Amino acid sequence: VPAAAADLDRTDPLASLRDRFILPEGVTYLDGNSLGALPVGVAERVNEAITRDWGVGLIRSWNDAGWYPAPARVGAMLAPIVGADPAHKSVVVCDSTSVDLFKALHAACSVRPSGRRVLIAESDNFPTNAYIAASVAAAYGLELRAVASDQVVAAVERAGSDVAAVSLTHVNYRTGRQHDMIAVTDQVHAAGALVLWDLCHSAGVYPVALDQLDVDFAVGCTYKFLNGGPGSPAFLYVNRRWIDAVSHPLQGWFGHRAPFEFDSSFEAAPGIQRMLTGTSPQLGLIALEAALAAYDGVDINAVRAKGEALTDRFISLVDETLGDGSAGAADHDNLVSVVSPRQASERGSQVSLSHPNAYAVMQALIERGVIGDFRAPDILRFGFQPLYVRFSDVDHAVGVLAEVITTRAWDQPRFHARKSVT
Amino acid sequence: VPAAAADLDRTDPLASLRDRFILPEGVTYLDGNSLGALPVGVAERVNEAITRDWGVGLIRSWNDAGWYPAPARVGAMLAPIVGADPAHKSVVVCDSTSVDLFKALHAACSVRPSGRRVLIAESDNFPTNAYIAASVAAAYGLELRAVASDQVVAAVERAGSDVAAVSLTHVNYRTGRQHDMIAVTDQVHAAGALVLWDLCHSAGVYPVALDQLDVDFAVGCTYKFLNGGPGSPAFLYVNRRWIDAVSHPLQGWFGHRAPFEFDSSFEAAPGIQRMLTGTSPQLGLIALEAALAAYDGVDINAVRAKGEALTDRFISLVDETLGDGSAGAADHDNLVSVVSPRQASERGSQVSLSHPNAYAVMQALIERGVIGDFRAPDILRFGFQPLYVRFSDVDHAVGVLAEVITTRAWDQPRFHARKSVT
Repeated sequence: VPAAAADLDRTDPLASLRDRFILPEGVTYLDGNSLGALPVGVAERVNEAITRDWGVGLIRSWNDAGWYPAPARVGAMLAPIVGADPAHKSVVVCDSTSVDLFKALHAACSVRPSGRRVLIAESDNFPTNAYIAASVAAAYGLELRAVASDQVVAAVERAGSDVAAVSLTHVNYRTGRQHDMIAVTDQVHAAGALVLWDLCHSAGVYPVALDQLDVDFAVGCTYKFLNGGPGSPAFLYVNRRWIDAVSHPLQGWFGHRAPFEFDSSFEAAPGIQRMLTGTSPQLGLIALEAALAAYDGVDINAVRAKGEALTDRFISLVDETLGDGSAGAADHDNLVSVVSPRQASERGSQVSLSHPNAYAVMQALIERGVIGDFRAPDILRFGFQPLYVRFSDVDHAVGVLAEVITTRAWDQPRFHARKSVT
Repeated sequence: VPAAAADLDRTDPLASLRDRFILPEGVTYLDGNSLGALPVGVAERVNEAITRDWGVGLIRSWNDAGWYPAPARVGAMLAPIVGADPAHKSVVVCDSTSVDLFKALHAACSVRPSGRRVLIAESDNFPTNAYIAASVAAAYGLELRAVASDQVVAAVERAGSDVAAVSLTHVNYRTGRQHDMIAVTDQVHAAGALVLWDLCHSAGVYPVALDQLDVDFAVGCTYKFLNGGPGSPAFLYVNRRWIDAVSHPLQGWFGHRAPFEFDSSFEAAPGIQRMLTGTSPQLGLIALEAALAAYDGVDINAVRAKGEALTDRFISLVDETLGDGSAGAADHDNLVSVVSPRQASERGSQVSLSHPNAYAVMQALIERGVIGDFRAPDILRFGFQPLYVRFSDVDHAVGVLAEVITTRAWDQPRFHARKSVT
């Protein structure tokens, strides 16, 4: 007999962390992998930054309110969450994930082993990763081999000593399938190549061990599981053995050795500072800094353990209520299937289901206060941020999903009208 | 007899616009060309966006709170301020100025007339402009000719039909000297080349006429005279005759024809949307949007007229109190000189002075509540945003400057200790 959700919530060692977030009434939020919930204190901190630091401090706040060092300071706060020693100064927060991916992949190619001509990326990854890989491969005259995620290991093996770099995303945004980061990193290194990990869907919910695995480069988003707010700046990790050797074409004044000497020729800053480009987005940085307080004293291993339990329970309940033999399973246009791996160790803090009318199903769920998202063509995506998602939320979400499916509540015209984003 | 400042302020048709800003007591703010003052309503709007749109709306706000179209919507608000017809959809707000400069200069080179091999830029421009020009020239195999600002016209003439593109800044950040944008644009076009204007120091205070002059590309900062807040996202203009032809290497999902189809191959969006890269920084966009309300109903020609009057008066008063023959003028380490052009039509809304101990002088001024900034090696820089700077501020600032100079108040150890930013 599985444990009751109420009992699990009562004994959950992370249960009190939910109080670090402001969550609206009547909503079960399973979309923290798209936009994290609002942490307590962020609104107050940003308001203070605007009214006091900007309004009164004005230009003086670049020194007095810590704006100038913010990209490195917030990077150091974020470092332990992704297994980087803050003392190594290998993490910086700046720009968008797309721009940081461009810079990091250029940086990787700038120090690739000589004579190597192949860049390996994933064909079924988030689109930006494919576009940037194509852009960087063209810039360096490398051959881009974009292969399906499950073919990466074989592709690295086949390319052998031709591989310059491998650009991968830890957890796939559609399926939730997670690479074995230890094994793949070791394989790429054994081939003498460099690895870049995109941690968009794992930073904050998985004990990523960048230093320990000796990962070369990493980037990630801060507005998903890290709760930095809409469009908050991304993070970028460069292994300290590379940092003083890399270059990238987005050379701007903030990446210069001495920005305020206003030299007309570019000389890269020592250390992670060289990965910066222009003036950093202070409101976004300030919101993110305040948001990261939600991780104070939190053990990411415990977060992951709860994440596995939440997603396991979600899959079990879906199987139970909507699996073979259940009501609705006979309708060919109303079949729910589990897309994410059933083995917890193979997936991120996410469960993806498929349904032939997934868009409409998700709209019907949202109308009922259960918020996940849709990914084309047929994916219902549910993200589980263990800092604020409860076991009872899992039960409630599956209950509402079962109702929407078995009553075909999704089959109404208003649920089929597409908006630009879901 | 020059008019009294009080009389000029009383009859200033723009005087009431100062009420659209929140300015601290006891401060005369002449650094709006580095970080603009806080407009009324920004703090409230950002707070609402955080608590309501993010906190309650959560992911739904990408549709319901207008986050998704924000880069184009705020671009359209900004367009008339730089002489662009919003209906042409040629302005977008995204990323930092440095990143936008990179994208715009790449875009220019991507449609350069065939066979042309020279990129002209300024050697005495803001450093990022030089660094990005070097980066883009290298990417396209173009020869970069970086010449002094006053040699641009001659360089274009000399290079003739070899010129592919010319990248210039309208108003020089150090000297305040302003290019004749009409004449230079015409000259570059007559040479069959493309022009890119950086409007960092003119957008918001000068009637830039991008459409009318048929400028090809432009970028600019929004946190200086446009008051968008620290690190607010930059703007990017692409003439509509180029927009569907250009490409750039920062190809990300937000620049795709259909971002939410998640195609694995990049197909650029039609129109200005293709200049976007990643997820846009919403807090920065929201603050900027609220800040631009300070321009509601404002005639930029009137802003410029007042800017000329303010800077004329400042120079006259400096001459009068600190010019040849005045007290202090005999001390070789205490000489103030006017660096900016004395002809109003040749300068932006800025006056730069030089002083052998400019850093210490500026620190002494700031301690007395007169805020400008220092630019290496010897520049005292004063910016005049006519929306909130009064004629009486000019008189007060020169009075304090004269006191600091004539009493050598700057000559104290604490004013010489450098901070990272001034």
